[in-house]
Amino acid sequence: MPFTIAEIAAALGIRAEGDTSLSVSAVAEPSQARAYDLALAMKPEFATQLADGRARAAMLWAGADWQALGLSAALLAPRPRYAMSGLSAMMDAGAGYGVGIHPTAVIDPTATLAEGVSVGPFAVIGADAVIGAGSVIGAQVFVGRGARIGQGALLHPGVRIGHDVTIGDRFIAHFGATVGADGFSFVTPEPSAAEKVRETLGDQAGATAQSYARIHSLGGVVIGDDVELGANSCIDRGTVRATQIGNGCKFDNLAQIGHNVVIGNDCLICAQVGIAGSSRIGNNVVLGGQTGVSDNLFIGDNVITGGATKVLSNVPAGRVMLGYPAMKMDTQLDLYRQLRRLPRLIADVAALKKSVSKPDSSD
Amino acid sequence: MPFTIAEIAAALGIRAEGDTSLSVSAVAEPSQARAYDLALAMKPEFATQLADGRARAAMLWAGADWQALGLSAALLAPRPRYAMSGLSAMMDAGAGYGVGIHPTAVIDPTATLAEGVSVGPFAVIGADAVIGAGSVIGAQVFVGRGARIGQGALLHPGVRIGHDVTIGDRFIAHFGATVGADGFSFVTPEPSAAEKVRETLGDQAGATAQSYARIHSLGGVVIGDDVELGANSCIDRGTVRATQIGNGCKFDNLAQIGHNVVIGNDCLICAQVGIAGSSRIGNNVVLGGQTGVSDNLFIGDNVITGGATKVLSNVPAGRVMLGYPAMKMDTQLDLYRQLRRLPRLIADVAALKKSVSKPDSSD
Amino acid sequence: MPFTIAEIAAALGIRAEGDTSLSVSAVAEPSQARAYDLALAMKPEFATQLADGRARAAMLWAGADWQALGLSAALLAPRPRYAMSGLSAMMDAGAGYGVGIHPTAVIDPTATLAEGVSVGPFAVIGADAVIGAGSVIGAQVFVGRGARIGQGALLHPGVRIGHDVTIGDRFIAHFGATVGADGFSFVTPEPSAAEKVRETLGDQAGATAQSYARIHSLGGVVIGDDVELGANSCIDRGTVRATQIGNGCKFDNLAQIGHNVVIGNDCLICAQVGIAGSSRIGNNVVLGGQTGVSDNLFIGDNVITGGATKVLSNVPAGRVMLGYPAMKMDTQLDLYRQLRRLPRLIADVAALKKSVSKPDSSD
Repeated sequence: MPFTIAEIAAALGIRAEGDTSLSVSAVAEPSQARAYDLALAMKPEFATQLADGRARAAMLWAGADWQALGLSAALLAPRPRYAMSGLSAMMDAGAGYGVGIHPTAVIDPTATLAEGVSVGPFAVIGADAVIGAGSVIGAQVFVGRGARIGQGALLHPGVRIGHDVTIGDRFIAHFGATVGADGFSFVTPEPSAAEKVRETLGDQAGATAQSYARIHSLGGVVIGDDVELGANSCIDRGTVRATQIGNGCKFDNLAQIGHNVVIGNDCLICAQVGIAGSSRIGNNVVLGGQTGVSDNLFIGDNVITGGATKVLSNVPAGRVMLGYPAMKMDTQLDLYRQLRRLPRLIADVAALKKSVSKPDSSD
Repeated sequence: MPFTIAEIAAALGIRAEGDTSLSVSAVAEPSQARAYDLALAMKPEFATQLADGRARAAMLWAGADWQALGLSAALLAPRPRYAMSGLSAMMDAGAGYGVGIHPTAVIDPTATLAEGVSVGPFAVIGADAVIGAGSVIGAQVFVGRGARIGQGALLHPGVRIGHDVTIGDRFIAHFGATVGADGFSFVTPEPSAAEKVRETLGDQAGATAQSYARIHSLGGVVIGDDVELGANSCIDRGTVRATQIGNGCKFDNLAQIGHNVVIGNDCLICAQVGIAGSSRIGNNVVLGGQTGVSDNLFIGDNVITGGATKVLSNVPAGRVMLGYPAMKMDTQLDLYRQLRRLPRLIADVAALKKSVSKPDSSD
Repeated sequence: MPFTIAEIAAALGIRAEGDTSLSVSAVAEPSQARAYDLALAMKPEFATQLADGRARAAMLWAGADWQALGLSAALLAPRPRYAMSGLSAMMDAGAGYGVGIHPTAVIDPTATLAEGVSVGPFAVIGADAVIGAGSVIGAQVFVGRGARIGQGALLHPGVRIGHDVTIGDRFIAHFGATVGADGFSFVTPEPSAAEKVRETLGDQAGATAQSYARIHSLGGVVIGDDVELGANSCIDRGTVRATQIGNGCKFDNLAQIGHNVVIGNDCLICAQVGIAGSSRIGNNVVLGGQTGVSDNLFIGDNVITGGATKVLSNVPAGRVMLGYPAMKMDTQLDLYRQLRRLPRLIADVAALKKSVSKPDSSD
């Protein structure tokens, strides 16, 4: 899939210099680049590695002196990382899933597939499901009864979409991702120990043995446009109303979104994050890897959590949080520093006690 | 699936008042309820939203003044949350999986399927497997050789049950859940650095490079009745004897149960919980989301852990735990408060040192 | 699958005593052993339970007095846990997957399957894929276009291997494991709040709403020999170059390995561990369950982390780490002890303040 430097510059709307008729067919790190690769040296510290490879052209930062780097041509991007988005899309040969409907696929006659839909081997599409134009339903995918998926979806092999789930356009879901499994909702005949603990905190719970009755999940899941869901991630259906995911949200692998959760637009949910039932997440929120959010909380717009942050209470808009329990990041970092002084503090207090000890101060 | 208010009251054994011949076909939150929905307003604070919707009937708490809320009929439940269990079951139209054996399913001729078993497209059932009456084996499910599954099971698409696993009645497993993958058990020819660290704690480990040999998992998994397993959760097989799960246990999504673990009855294991190999969990235990339990520990009956609790040592029965490392919840909450006083404490000690400084107190 | 004690001893290279012609067909814990089982009593504390079972032969530690334990024969292993590796392999009847190519499998005509490859029902093997001799591709497995898998692989049902992934010999992957899903890499047109936080730490992020553009993952995954991947674990593909996993690495269930990560040889990655993008892990590293490693970090050889350790900065070789944030294990354990003294410390300082209070010391 070769492109000339000029073609790439035009497609990305960035500046090209040098021999822009030079053709590249792949991207590479500077030191590993072959002669027909476009090297990626987006910061000055990577440019020195160009000499270790054989690239004749590179994507560089705006203003880079590409001639001094021994190149024949250069792409100069004001924000190279952003330019990587368009460049990587151009260079992506795709996963090679077949086009058309594979003869083994089991598609209910009442399902509606718009123009240009592909369905892979052993996929199952249930009654009354609707798949938008140009969507790719990979091998071994399951789409439940009445599920609606918009245009241009890409469901990789093994994705499961439950019944009555509604998903917008350009949805991408990776291997084994699931949408619309039942929520985790159980109830005991009498108030359970866990319910009592929520009221009393820390009080030891009574020890009455009770079995759980399940509450069925009658709500579905409603997902906006341009959402991406990582491998083996799970978004559960709601209990009464739907679990809701806004436009532009991106979920990494192994994330867990509980029943009734509401997430706004353009959130980044990193790997292994868990959001417990009925919590509400604003817009443009970033939850770092392994973040946990307890149930029934509210996380405001633009909140960012560092890796493994455990959010046990509401977080106002704009906060940057870290730690367990989650605190403002600067407070948490101060605390980490203070904790390192604890041994000295203990020694100081012991010395002080000795130094001020008088018969009347002992207890 | 319409029911009259009287029919619902009779089925749930709760009180109905007003025009009990009124028919409802779905449940809804008060503000979103349509005229033919049963609104759910289980606490007084939700009842005010009834005015925003169009419900003529609602499920309310015992003693609610439904007439003052403008309703024509009401269901009055002494514990509305518990009533939701039966009500949601009545209102659940199900996932719409087909009945009967799908012609594409590959079922070993030596497998035994009791009366009324359904098997979906592309499911695989191995030799000598036994499936109890009325069980639903979803699309793309795998059931291994010699696995035994009781009556009334519901295995959603993509569930994998390993060979020689035994499961009781009414088992529910969601998309991608796995039972009976091999345990994680490896051994080095000589004691490994990790083994030494367990003895010395904190001592830096020796640096001899060794490769791992695998210990095969010869035990199976034995699961009781009425167990539910969330999407993409994993229960590993035992090494020599079976991993054991008691009756009535419920697991949320992405939970991990290691080899040889023994769990009692009626435990609630929330999402992303991990229980490491050979730990024993009592009855009626609740492990909050993202809880971790180290290997070879004992967790007593009725223990409850808050979200993200990391259990590094045994926990006696009845304890309510929180934090990393896990402490009694009230102790942990006290500690959080004390930590907030640390900056002040450091300042106080500095001031005290200055105030009491004498030549002989310096060190 | 019966073996005589003599045969086992010869296979494992360990000592046998007593009636070594005695035949056993399975292994068991001492108290549950039947007459034809080999009891496993690898430490003296387990030997007392032999009396509760009916075993006539046992695997014991070197030097054990088997006659005093009432046995007819014994296997005496200098390191019984290591002997378990070979013994368990002998005793493993396997999962019973069929041999040969199942007629339902969809195998691209351009794929190359070496001698003795088995492919289960509903498996899909893409164009130009190469599968090494003797490999077992389980039911419902997906192998993408151009993927290369070495000899003697065992892919359990539901495993997904993405396109252009390269895997060495003797690879084992459990139910639902995925290799080669896209990395989690998104970029905003202007620097995002999360990017700014990385520079300013703790500063509240600006609140400009931006949508994310995806960076395609053009790198693959390269995995060495003798690697094992647990159920529903995920290894993502790289952005420009491949994500790399060395020889002999073992991953437990639900682990997450981000894009561009490089892992050395013989690492043990326990369940629910997450390693964020572009981090580099040395050789012989052990990451305990639920460990998290932030992105772009370096973890040296022989590092060991305790359960749920959250690594937020580089770790030099040989370190044993614990906690959140990760500290040296002994420092962390000291800190836990010091924290328990915090209430007393606060009281002491209050008493000291009172005892030394003078007009000029107040602030």
